[in-house]
Amino acid sequence: MSVTAPRGFTAAGLTAGLKPSGTKDLALVVNTGPDDAVAAVYTSNRCKANPVLWSEKASANGRARAVVLNSGGANCYTGDFGYETTTLTAETTATLLNDTAQAGNTTGDAARTDRSNQTVAAEDILVCSTGLIGVGGQDFRDRIIDNLGDLVAAATADETGGADAAEAIMTTDTVAKTSVRTGAGGYTVGGMAKGAGMLAPGLATMLVVITTDAQVDAAGLDSALRAATSQSFDRLDTDGCMSTNDTVILMGSGASEVTPEADEFAAVAKDVCLDLMHQLHVDAEGAHHDIAITTQGAVSEEDAVMVSRSVGRSNLFKAAIFGEDPNWGRVVAQVGTTSAAFDPANIDVTINGVRVCKASGPDADPELVTFERTVDVVIDLHAGDASATVWTSDLTHDYVEENSAYST
Amino acid sequence: MSVTAPRGFTAAGLTAGLKPSGTKDLALVVNTGPDDAVAAVYTSNRCKANPVLWSEKASANGRARAVVLNSGGANCYTGDFGYETTTLTAETTATLLNDTAQAGNTTGDAARTDRSNQTVAAEDILVCSTGLIGVGGQDFRDRIIDNLGDLVAAATADETGGADAAEAIMTTDTVAKTSVRTGAGGYTVGGMAKGAGMLAPGLATMLVVITTDAQVDAAGLDSALRAATSQSFDRLDTDGCMSTNDTVILMGSGASEVTPEADEFAAVAKDVCLDLMHQLHVDAEGAHHDIAITTQGAVSEEDAVMVSRSVGRSNLFKAAIFGEDPNWGRVVAQVGTTSAAFDPANIDVTINGVRVCKASGPDADPELVTFERTVDVVIDLHAGDASATVWTSDLTHDYVEENSAYST
Repeated sequence: MSVTAPRGFTAAGLTAGLKPSGTKDLALVVNTGPDDAVAAVYTSNRCKANPVLWSEKASANGRARAVVLNSGGANCYTGDFGYETTTLTAETTATLLNDTAQAGNTTGDAARTDRSNQTVAAEDILVCSTGLIGVGGQDFRDRIIDNLGDLVAAATADETGGADAAEAIMTTDTVAKTSVRTGAGGYTVGGMAKGAGMLAPGLATMLVVITTDAQVDAAGLDSALRAATSQSFDRLDTDGCMSTNDTVILMGSGASEVTPEADEFAAVAKDVCLDLMHQLHVDAEGAHHDIAITTQGAVSEEDAVMVSRSVGRSNLFKAAIFGEDPNWGRVVAQVGTTSAAFDPANIDVTINGVRVCKASGPDADPELVTFERTVDVVIDLHAGDASATVWTSDLTHDYVEENSAYST
Repeated sequence: MSVTAPRGFTAAGLTAGLKPSGTKDLALVVNTGPDDAVAAVYTSNRCKANPVLWSEKASANGRARAVVLNSGGANCYTGDFGYETTTLTAETTATLLNDTAQAGNTTGDAARTDRSNQTVAAEDILVCSTGLIGVGGQDFRDRIIDNLGDLVAAATADETGGADAAEAIMTTDTVAKTSVRTGAGGYTVGGMAKGAGMLAPGLATMLVVITTDAQVDAAGLDSALRAATSQSFDRLDTDGCMSTNDTVILMGSGASEVTPEADEFAAVAKDVCLDLMHQLHVDAEGAHHDIAITTQGAVSEEDAVMVSRSVGRSNLFKAAIFGEDPNWGRVVAQVGTTSAAFDPANIDVTINGVRVCKASGPDADPELVTFERTVDVVIDLHAGDASATVWTSDLTHDYVEENSAYST
């Protein structure tokens, strides 16, 4: 169901010819109201793609009517021409949505809004792109602009709209990622995500659109979204590489007429983010093992995240897990590179339930560790009560292969 | 020639049985004087191996008579027993050197010192270990201690002594690394190094012993060594993983009776360090390409190192180079993760002489880039006059293979 599960949203996905594979590559999500609240978080990379530069400004007022997303090109480092492509995309989509509203909704629920008296402005349209950096020339522009009319016409509140949109944002993803949760009182949160490589904090290389028909204002959406991403997408770190295009958008239509408690809504939104994050995790490029690294006994959550992340970024550790080698020395070596509070002589490491290192010395025979697809590493710093988990992938031949001959 | 090229040094290497391969694994370098000056830099990893904990204390007074080094076990996270093994190694070696001196040098120049009236103390012996973390039990201890007598007896100022020692410290190295330079007035600097994996700043996973017969006091050695390592070993970052055992030792015998100018000596010492660093670089585990990443136009050398290092740690960039893909997008994406001063809209990237990105947009056709073993990446930030180079390796199937089935 994805982004069309909540009431007040239509979506579409089609093939614009941006991807050599000929699969869907252009998506649209329209908030048909009555509200047009939005919150978004973007990559913290200082080299931001053009759609990020645009959408940061466009979403700053807490209002958005639609999101246009494409795969097959990141439109990053494509100069002024690339930025113009993004603004042209927003302008054209706004015009098309206005035309559709004026036409009296003759196409059923396609792109219909319940706010026919409110003109859609270019600034009401957010744009997301994903694919290769440097791709965003005339061809790229033409294929997007020329297909926006069909895209707006195809937008539907049906299940197919959400499914098509989720499919159209895929790059090296092997499956579309969607999630739906229902909140207290009967409101719904739905989401879609893409991302398989360049997954690191400051968001993974991910595009995520989450929709809800709960009545929550932009500030409420923002608060829930930031809390949710900081404990989900920001803790997925499959290869330590931070993207230029990461965007997570949460749109509220208010169509359920349910006004949830802030904490309850935040919990449901986080649940959707965690579900999507785990789907990204298990589909990470070339991964053979899905690794969860939990640091406990830390003096703060920040320390726990820092330690888990440092281990999750060690190529030696990641290669060892690929070889199903419970090499705890590579874990403590990474712990030692951090500034977290701990006694170097009192660290425990447990791999898949077997404590192979106790008080910074060998403990159980590493031969006792058995491996499956999911690997759990627990580091105990014995310094406090805080804990946190970071998720990563092993370093495999497939990862090297996929990323040494990259094509989207 | 290695460490025995300068006058006033003997060395040896033999097989103690620490490595399953049965190759040499125990080494000794003795400073026979007249001076016993020493300087050393150690890993900045907070989880330090036992020999590092010992040698840091032992070298603090600027004096050392010998270094004992082993491969086949890092003696890291081996608890109190492991630390006792290190102290026992130092004590036994000191006793053996005293016994040899008393015996009147009957074995020729083996382990002879010109300071027969000066008793060697355990604190005059530095210890270095390399191999797997967690290895350092009773067997490890016995094989070292039981072989120290033969080791001291075998120490010679001949070329073979230096060669044997350089061979005995190898782990996954495919060749022994040695270097010799001659300074103004006729003094000599010689060195040996090991290191093939876990190479990252705060020193690579390396053991390096450099000897000189120049008359330089401990403070002078320290100043020259720190300057040299900061611009050589500290800028080699093959896989972003920092070791627990890194040690670089510079010993001065004064035997040449030449007192060099400080700057001239520092330049020769740096030359030896750079030579050894490049030998480590081209022998890095699984590397198919030796990559030099130069950042120019930075406002400071620190900024230049930060930017070059961030690119050198990108798995996506490293995998692209393995595939001979001049993927400049993966370069700018990494630049954007740093806090260096630059305008995100004005970055140039040149790969092997072809400027593929100008002013943060596509420039020359990447198809024009040709690849050989050596890859040069130049990033121009257009922000200042400082520059720096960091060296790294590509991410290859061989790296994954070697590190997923690690054995020393």
